[in-house]
Amino acid sequence: MLSFENDYSRAAHPAILKALADTQEDLYPGYGSDEVCERAKARIREACGLADGTPVWFLVGGTQTNQVVIDAVTPSWAGVVAVASGHPNVHEAGAIEYSGHKVLTLPHHDGLMDPDELDAFCRDFYADGNFEHMVFPGCVYVSQSTEYGTVYSKERLQAIADVAHRYHMPLFVDGARLGYALTATGCDMTLEDLAHIADVFYIGGTKQGALFGEAVVFSNPEWAPRHFLTQIKQHGALLAKGWLLGLQFDTLFTDGLYLRIARNANVAADRIREALVAKGYELTFATPTNQIFVTLDQPTIDRLEAHVRLGFTEKADDTHTVMRICTSWATTEAEVDQLIALL
Amino acid sequence: MLSFENDYSRAAHPAILKALADTQEDLYPGYGSDEVCERAKARIREACGLADGTPVWFLVGGTQTNQVVIDAVTPSWAGVVAVASGHPNVHEAGAIEYSGHKVLTLPHHDGLMDPDELDAFCRDFYADGNFEHMVFPGCVYVSQSTEYGTVYSKERLQAIADVAHRYHMPLFVDGARLGYALTATGCDMTLEDLAHIADVFYIGGTKQGALFGEAVVFSNPEWAPRHFLTQIKQHGALLAKGWLLGLQFDTLFTDGLYLRIARNANVAADRIREALVAKGYELTFATPTNQIFVTLDQPTIDRLEAHVRLGFTEKADDTHTVMRICTSWATTEAEVDQLIALL
Amino acid sequence: MLSFENDYSRAAHPAILKALADTQEDLYPGYGSDEVCERAKARIREACGLADGTPVWFLVGGTQTNQVVIDAVTPSWAGVVAVASGHPNVHEAGAIEYSGHKVLTLPHHDGLMDPDELDAFCRDFYADGNFEHMVFPGCVYVSQSTEYGTVYSKERLQAIADVAHRYHMPLFVDGARLGYALTATGCDMTLEDLAHIADVFYIGGTKQGALFGEAVVFSNPEWAPRHFLTQIKQHGALLAKGWLLGLQFDTLFTDGLYLRIARNANVAADRIREALVAKGYELTFATPTNQIFVTLDQPTIDRLEAHVRLGFTEKADDTHTVMRICTSWATTEAEVDQLIALL
Amino acid sequence: MLSFENDYSRAAHPAILKALADTQEDLYPGYGSDEVCERAKARIREACGLADGTPVWFLVGGTQTNQVVIDAVTPSWAGVVAVASGHPNVHEAGAIEYSGHKVLTLPHHDGLMDPDELDAFCRDFYADGNFEHMVFPGCVYVSQSTEYGTVYSKERLQAIADVAHRYHMPLFVDGARLGYALTATGCDMTLEDLAHIADVFYIGGTKQGALFGEAVVFSNPEWAPRHFLTQIKQHGALLAKGWLLGLQFDTLFTDGLYLRIARNANVAADRIREALVAKGYELTFATPTNQIFVTLDQPTIDRLEAHVRLGFTEKADDTHTVMRICTSWATTEAEVDQLIALL
Repeated sequence: MLSFENDYSRAAHPAILKALADTQEDLYPGYGSDEVCERAKARIREACGLADGTPVWFLVGGTQTNQVVIDAVTPSWAGVVAVASGHPNVHEAGAIEYSGHKVLTLPHHDGLMDPDELDAFCRDFYADGNFEHMVFPGCVYVSQSTEYGTVYSKERLQAIADVAHRYHMPLFVDGARLGYALTATGCDMTLEDLAHIADVFYIGGTKQGALFGEAVVFSNPEWAPRHFLTQIKQHGALLAKGWLLGLQFDTLFTDGLYLRIARNANVAADRIREALVAKGYELTFATPTNQIFVTLDQPTIDRLEAHVRLGFTEKADDTHTVMRICTSWATTEAEVDQLIALL
Repeated sequence: MLSFENDYSRAAHPAILKALADTQEDLYPGYGSDEVCERAKARIREACGLADGTPVWFLVGGTQTNQVVIDAVTPSWAGVVAVASGHPNVHEAGAIEYSGHKVLTLPHHDGLMDPDELDAFCRDFYADGNFEHMVFPGCVYVSQSTEYGTVYSKERLQAIADVAHRYHMPLFVDGARLGYALTATGCDMTLEDLAHIADVFYIGGTKQGALFGEAVVFSNPEWAPRHFLTQIKQHGALLAKGWLLGLQFDTLFTDGLYLRIARNANVAADRIREALVAKGYELTFATPTNQIFVTLDQPTIDRLEAHVRLGFTEKADDTHTVMRICTSWATTEAEVDQLIALL
Repeated sequence: MLSFENDYSRAAHPAILKALADTQEDLYPGYGSDEVCERAKARIREACGLADGTPVWFLVGGTQTNQVVIDAVTPSWAGVVAVASGHPNVHEAGAIEYSGHKVLTLPHHDGLMDPDELDAFCRDFYADGNFEHMVFPGCVYVSQSTEYGTVYSKERLQAIADVAHRYHMPLFVDGARLGYALTATGCDMTLEDLAHIADVFYIGGTKQGALFGEAVVFSNPEWAPRHFLTQIKQHGALLAKGWLLGLQFDTLFTDGLYLRIARNANVAADRIREALVAKGYELTFATPTNQIFVTLDQPTIDRLEAHVRLGFTEKADDTHTVMRICTSWATTEAEVDQLIALL
Repeated sequence: MLSFENDYSRAAHPAILKALADTQEDLYPGYGSDEVCERAKARIREACGLADGTPVWFLVGGTQTNQVVIDAVTPSWAGVVAVASGHPNVHEAGAIEYSGHKVLTLPHHDGLMDPDELDAFCRDFYADGNFEHMVFPGCVYVSQSTEYGTVYSKERLQAIADVAHRYHMPLFVDGARLGYALTATGCDMTLEDLAHIADVFYIGGTKQGALFGEAVVFSNPEWAPRHFLTQIKQHGALLAKGWLLGLQFDTLFTDGLYLRIARNANVAADRIREALVAKGYELTFATPTNQIFVTLDQPTIDRLEAHVRLGFTEKADDTHTVMRICTSWATTEAEVDQLIALL
């Protein structure tokens, strides 16, 4: 059966599976203190235009990364600001609160944070005489691309960073789908740009060709936590065979594989979007990345789901539902053709 | 200078100060294991129409009580549902998140929770296929009276309790200003009613005549936590000289003092409300309790604040501010006369 | 019945009860932002020989203070070093672990920490290649006097501070019974000395004449936490009527009351110790402060407890028990006479 | 260079690498809700002699598993009892305390817990009048094999379980090296026995042939946590591609691979032990599993380390060091021969 359900239902890119199969004879020191990790980190720094020694760390999954990073860069008495639709606010089972931090929410605009609203929130916070009884904003979280597949422009992200810095907070960018954002039609931001704007961000592997893994980059060393390995271990997040993460990112950052396979997903999505519009479907959000949201009536859903797996998002009204069509690094032209034929 | 700034700016009711002065020669066992506490608990159970042995505990302050109780009755993997304006969501510096629980928010209606919205929230939560990645609602929190001085009717609170129970959650009622609610004009709820409807609630002392202290009542023994003394200690909330709390509640629950002095605040507030309306002021919310919210322009504020301290709530618009006039158990007729003359 | 059970069974010094009774007509701003607190803080700074503006804060109880202070000055990924008999390790129901920090224990020597053992612990910690998987020592905790009533000399405490600083940790001194330590026969340390040696310490009120209250002094401003009021609130530890704490410490630090009444307890204890020795009792520990530990057989315990309440400490062997005789600021000569007559 | 440094320096058993390479074309639902996981769970239940439906869960690593399981089965106000040398007490960077629980320690006997000491600890705890101010024992943790490579007999583990149950606690057995324990010479315990004695345990994959992964078995359904998936997610421990864990355990539990490759490590270790004894080396502990501890002087260490990597444990005295020789599922006869030749 055809599936456009999500971007993590395939194992991994063949190059990664092959690299893994070739490790049979190797011997690795534990916990990421190996040469493969070092090489992968060097490649990532280079791709980001960052200096040697810039801290790069590998973690296993997205929620884990959000929890560990936010906990590490946010003061214990402060919260993290995110849009209400942000992943840590909705779909992480309280992993942030578990580490003691409140998620302070702003409205989202097709998934995006508005820098002026962030500024107003912080200004009001400090203006209110009683703010010492409230949770201080201590970190700003956004994701690129967003939960709704939209993308921050360089200008908008810089404006958010400027506000964050005005109030002495780091800007943390969740890049679970970073490649899909950076290679989207119309995206004016490069990996170097992102590394320059954000204080810390991560490059998602799980949804972009790896079996698992996220690479955290503390591009602004001012916010690099002390004893981060210990903090990772304290959160139960340290992988014994850390080289598994290095190996995957080494592969993804060799010969531009990471962005190349991300672009593949966007090309597929663009074709599907075009077909949807041509056939008169209603796109719920205008998105340039690998996630397409479309509002469908039940008969259409029933007809499609007989042949293809889609993702459920939410009820739009009594008779319509927002469904997600999600392409990935692994989506083939043939699959796109089949889907379009079904529409 | 006249003050209607809040309801905790006076020391304590004379009967409490006197009782305290009389303890000079006494000898008390520690941590609340004394006869005065036992007597106070018995009086509270009686006033609530509860069986002997119903667990009653004394804590020092409101935020502390909210933190300790919510943490004790909410599963570790669940959150507490409150209206967005609720005290734990806004003015407790993240004390709930500090204990690992997310505050799940519903809209407020003049400070009140809507039982249908609570039901819809819970229903959607369980309907969404992905709810296991979300924070479960594990406890319902409301305050009586609310942050905006409004009061739950018996019917509305019962409806909220019914929803809570439908989803296997306890209903916790914050009674920091419980006396002001129960003695308000139009309130159809008695202390017995509250004890019957809520699973756990507290009777506020700090804002109602005590130096400090809140009495937690687990009126539904099904939700009484195991080893609660240890849990209190674990939160750093166990008072060594626990008899201080017993003594104050023993005094407040002798001869109906608690409700009598609360009524005094409401009578004073009623007179002020009447004068405000007569003089054409705009009441921001219609409240029957000791908190009056009034929307004022800056010249009026300046004129009043030359003679009387008021509470700041929030900016209403560029030229108006919502101010709070707060009476208390200690407010005198003379003070009310002076304020009315100033209006 | 006579009681030498503990040092917190009397209400409070008459001067405090009187000061409290005199507040009937007063009006106070909330949360410690009042003039009485300011005055009390100034008196404490003066008594400690500290500069104007040195941060002084008031909290309600000892476990609460240990939790809030240790959490504020210890990095989130680090633990606090204490002797195994230390109060946070044994009698605080896990309040430190509740805030996420491990208590790292060293052996005690009659309740005291050995600076060389502290140094060896830290040295080994950093020497072990795998220390990044262990809990870093992030703060050193001692109490003056100790759980066993013993007292640190200036030299020993300075040596501990030196080790702490060598490993970039603050030294936190729990002074729940500080007055009893400073006024003990043979103690060579003044309050000024302590303030000079410790980075943060607290002056205990609960066990030394106050109804409740502990005054935290960040004598080394380098370790003063940011937004400490918010941190206190976050822990549920902020007293609404904070002036209650200021009033008590203002009284205790007027005309040297604090040390004077502490000395009273020691004078009483010295007389009892002398009598015990004269009558051939076995002192379990040699202590110069208000806590006397004596190993008794059951018939003696039974005989004494018919007339006087003592404190149970632990079984010494099958037929002997370590009992505690505890004097306080309130112990009278007559009570001491009665006890000695019973021995 | 030869390596006997640890048991997780090889990638994974060839059967696992092969199974993984074969997933290229597959499509999996997320978060472990797939058929491979179901099949692996069924195999594990069968190997343990447990009923259909007995909860089995897969997690990524050992510290993570200890944190998540202990937090799930221990009341929030309680601690976990372990021997002082236990992994959670020493080498998990405070992951247990991070989740709010104190590790309550007993002495170890060559790594093993003594059931009588556990009983005495609990009995004293409840006997002491003041135990409500202490941390309740709420869970018993042991590992099979222990940190020092020793193994619990069936009788000893049952005795520990009996004590745990007497005090209403679950017994949790950390099986990071379970196969090495169960196949050790002299071990009288089967997987079925363990499943019968323990309330919850895990079967370690990371150190026994998998790339990563631990299988948690709630063999006593009474202690199976509610909403465990959500709890896993809350701890940041839910693997998106959960089938990776299922695939590995499916492989390990097909045709007895798990125990077969574990036995290989023990056979190798037995040969090395024999050689060590024959050559007059001093074994620090008598261990029957894959970890050999040997006390060496520095010249010997220098001589060996020129050719083989060993594990450092701790300094024995000024001139001797305890080194660990660790075999694994991957150790070959040739490697053993080479090592023996070096001794």
